[in-house]
Amino acid sequence: MRTPEAELPLYRRLAQRLWDDIDQAGLVEGSRLPSVRRLALQHGVSLTTALQALRWLETQGRIEARPRAGYFVAKRAKRTKRSMAGRDDASATSHWTGPVPIVDEQTRDHLAMVGEPCAVQLDLASGEPTLYPVERLGVLLRRLAYQHRDLVGSHVRGAGHPGLRGEIARRALQYACALDPEEIVVTNGCVEALNLALRAVARPGAVVAVESPTYFVLLQMLRALEMTAYPIPCRPVTGMDLDALESALRTVPIKAVVTIANANNPMGSVTSDAAKRALARMASEHGVPLIEDDIFGDLCFGDARAAPVRAFDSDGNVLLCGGFSKSLCPGLRLGWIAAGRYTERVKALKYTTSMATAELQQAAVAEMLASGGYALHLRRLKAALDGQQRAMRDAVLRYFPAGTVVTDPAGGFVLWVKLPEAGGRRASTRVLFEQARAEGIGFAPGHLFGSGSEFDDCLRLNAGYRWSDTLEAAIKRLGVLASGALG
Amino acid sequence: MRTPEAELPLYRRLAQRLWDDIDQAGLVEGSRLPSVRRLALQHGVSLTTALQALRWLETQGRIEARPRAGYFVAKRAKRTKRSMAGRDDASATSHWTGPVPIVDEQTRDHLAMVGEPCAVQLDLASGEPTLYPVERLGVLLRRLAYQHRDLVGSHVRGAGHPGLRGEIARRALQYACALDPEEIVVTNGCVEALNLALRAVARPGAVVAVESPTYFVLLQMLRALEMTAYPIPCRPVTGMDLDALESALRTVPIKAVVTIANANNPMGSVTSDAAKRALARMASEHGVPLIEDDIFGDLCFGDARAAPVRAFDSDGNVLLCGGFSKSLCPGLRLGWIAAGRYTERVKALKYTTSMATAELQQAAVAEMLASGGYALHLRRLKAALDGQQRAMRDAVLRYFPAGTVVTDPAGGFVLWVKLPEAGGRRASTRVLFEQARAEGIGFAPGHLFGSGSEFDDCLRLNAGYRWSDTLEAAIKRLGVLASGALG
Repeated sequence: MRTPEAELPLYRRLAQRLWDDIDQAGLVEGSRLPSVRRLALQHGVSLTTALQALRWLETQGRIEARPRAGYFVAKRAKRTKRSMAGRDDASATSHWTGPVPIVDEQTRDHLAMVGEPCAVQLDLASGEPTLYPVERLGVLLRRLAYQHRDLVGSHVRGAGHPGLRGEIARRALQYACALDPEEIVVTNGCVEALNLALRAVARPGAVVAVESPTYFVLLQMLRALEMTAYPIPCRPVTGMDLDALESALRTVPIKAVVTIANANNPMGSVTSDAAKRALARMASEHGVPLIEDDIFGDLCFGDARAAPVRAFDSDGNVLLCGGFSKSLCPGLRLGWIAAGRYTERVKALKYTTSMATAELQQAAVAEMLASGGYALHLRRLKAALDGQQRAMRDAVLRYFPAGTVVTDPAGGFVLWVKLPEAGGRRASTRVLFEQARAEGIGFAPGHLFGSGSEFDDCLRLNAGYRWSDTLEAAIKRLGVLASGALG
Repeated sequence: MRTPEAELPLYRRLAQRLWDDIDQAGLVEGSRLPSVRRLALQHGVSLTTALQALRWLETQGRIEARPRAGYFVAKRAKRTKRSMAGRDDASATSHWTGPVPIVDEQTRDHLAMVGEPCAVQLDLASGEPTLYPVERLGVLLRRLAYQHRDLVGSHVRGAGHPGLRGEIARRALQYACALDPEEIVVTNGCVEALNLALRAVARPGAVVAVESPTYFVLLQMLRALEMTAYPIPCRPVTGMDLDALESALRTVPIKAVVTIANANNPMGSVTSDAAKRALARMASEHGVPLIEDDIFGDLCFGDARAAPVRAFDSDGNVLLCGGFSKSLCPGLRLGWIAAGRYTERVKALKYTTSMATAELQQAAVAEMLASGGYALHLRRLKAALDGQQRAMRDAVLRYFPAGTVVTDPAGGFVLWVKLPEAGGRRASTRVLFEQARAEGIGFAPGHLFGSGSEFDDCLRLNAGYRWSDTLEAAIKRLGVLASGALG
């Protein structure tokens, strides 16, 4: 007999409904079930609940997960005695059966994070909208949309708004980084810049050295491009381990190195100028292009803007990727790349990837840079982020289990937290992630930042929002859940 | 002795200067020369002039072109007696020597077109800005930037502005095409939609069936993705040859089919509903996903909106790509894809390709669609395009060599022109392209639309601009140049 519905948790009720649906539709083994997202929408439940339901059905042998493919009605051998009778009617396969949604755990958690915001957004590295000069940008956009109608009506071609490309180069000079406006291509966010950079220097099958841990979108991107990430340890203060990199460059056919030297994601470190110089030289000597993600470069907390590795490059070997989504206007999705000797390739790839980037917002940002408004805003934003990070760090140390370690970042948005062991057992933030999301608290689980289970006991917290009682309560609750995870 | 400088054409003067520069810098053989674009910028000349100079140096044996790599100082064997003494000093290699700008003729012509506008823009399929409701869009953008500041200040995530996705689905219902807003992903132009579609269904190395001739950006895109285009003949009125496709699907391991069924680019044809139904069924029966580029679908000249192939698909096998850059707001770079059963994959790829698309302009376009303003505008735009195409077609028939054939398009922007033979010799529009650009007239040369020389005697003309004496003069001049090309 079934447990009375009302007593069951929501995911169990959904699971029973799916079980019945499979029976009633007479789905044969191997039929594909709708995606987690579709189920969630159809049944008006959260992604987490839909996923829990599918996992429960899996534990019952009713369905099976196929890596990178989805959930399917299980083969008979896997079914329990509650299995349906089973008609082998090929015409009864589900609607839109077919290949290959990517739904391994890492991708699924990634999609959940980037696709659906939680009530408390500690997951993505994003700032509270009130921290940005939206009013001023709004005025600029309104004026430009009125005065320069060609920004709306004209076909866009070329590498970006000349004014913005010029301002980016002018600003870079302030931190001793010589960029040629002609090598700059404006992109749809820094993510597109990284994507073009990787495709400009490496082919499918290539091995790419990355910091470990590193920005999870980069790891997902490498998978999507069929490239292999080769992890180089990254330290909380000093950044990428250059001895390990040198050794890898000697022994592994590495086609590119990706670094986040300024306000590293997730470590928060700012690499020293000496280490940056050594890194630029090492990459050049080995003839391996270096892709630098400098999206957080403008958000290092010191008064002077930290130089990027590119400032120490003399032969066009560093592809510098930047953008304004973290530092100025998250909603406008503006990034850029200065591609050195790979400029022609990046331009050719840009044309076949998205043709060009809309120029209205480029013109607005160019004005913010030219007027000095950006510099003023940055000073305020950096002070706010610094304070928010310290408040969140204090709360983590107060509410998380004793022995928890947390970074003390030199810039950016995020804290990297490592949970202690308990009874010789490492905590896992995989389950914690789903528990917290079910309660409306999003964070980035450690496993996304590597390729195995090496960061299962870690998590990343976004400190981009103004410190508040809500945030304090969320950190406190995460601390309780983390203690529970330590059992 | 040299010819006196003043008597030489500009490209020859530039060539001599480069010759001297190579000597003075003591560049060794194999040293890479700056890119065409860089030379043009450095010396304040057009790309065409820079290219002509390089080609002249090449004919002199002073430099050599390496496919997909660029121009290099020639090996000694290739040099004429004017060769420099030649020091084998490895330290004297040029600044930023290094790999692989893609500069074969096709890519170079493509980059010239998409990178640099001519005075007379007959090349890209683009409309005159005054044909678009830029004033109305400007009002919407101004209001939205004021009322919805989160459109500027908020981190963007997810598949696009829900309002726009809903309006796209609602509008598709009017032409009997059932789209689920949840399967729609908003993209940075239709080019990004096509790129994501290809990557969702095929891997590097895959063979993809395309119409021949077809949209040149698609061919460049396939090359950039390391996929191989398999040409299926496309007819001026009926579109893709389905017998040829069926035969190819039986014999070649084709992983995807790309079609432009509505207002085909470059043919201008609108495939019949019967052929669309047959195409949808054929792809489905062979288990091969069909990618439909419907960017011109809203611009078919009839009163009723032509249905896309997707309207005849019942199993999620058609990835429908659309956008507003041709029909509503060229400057805003807004496209979309309805990816059927490939939706999850497309979303995952979108996140790692450009994360998300800015929503300010999406909200503006959503309002244009919801208010009926788009439908009104379309009626006017289609009438204008129809008239412009007829005027340009008449001019081509008047001014081009006797025997020239030109399409009579059922929609869109472009005319496809085939030059006659003369004395058993086919005309080539490759040289014509450079001659015309040198005079400020851009068109799309036929060789870009195929993979060999099969369309060398063809060219594509954009009729997106209001008919004018300037355009008439340009067509007349092209006719003269074409007659010259026939010898």
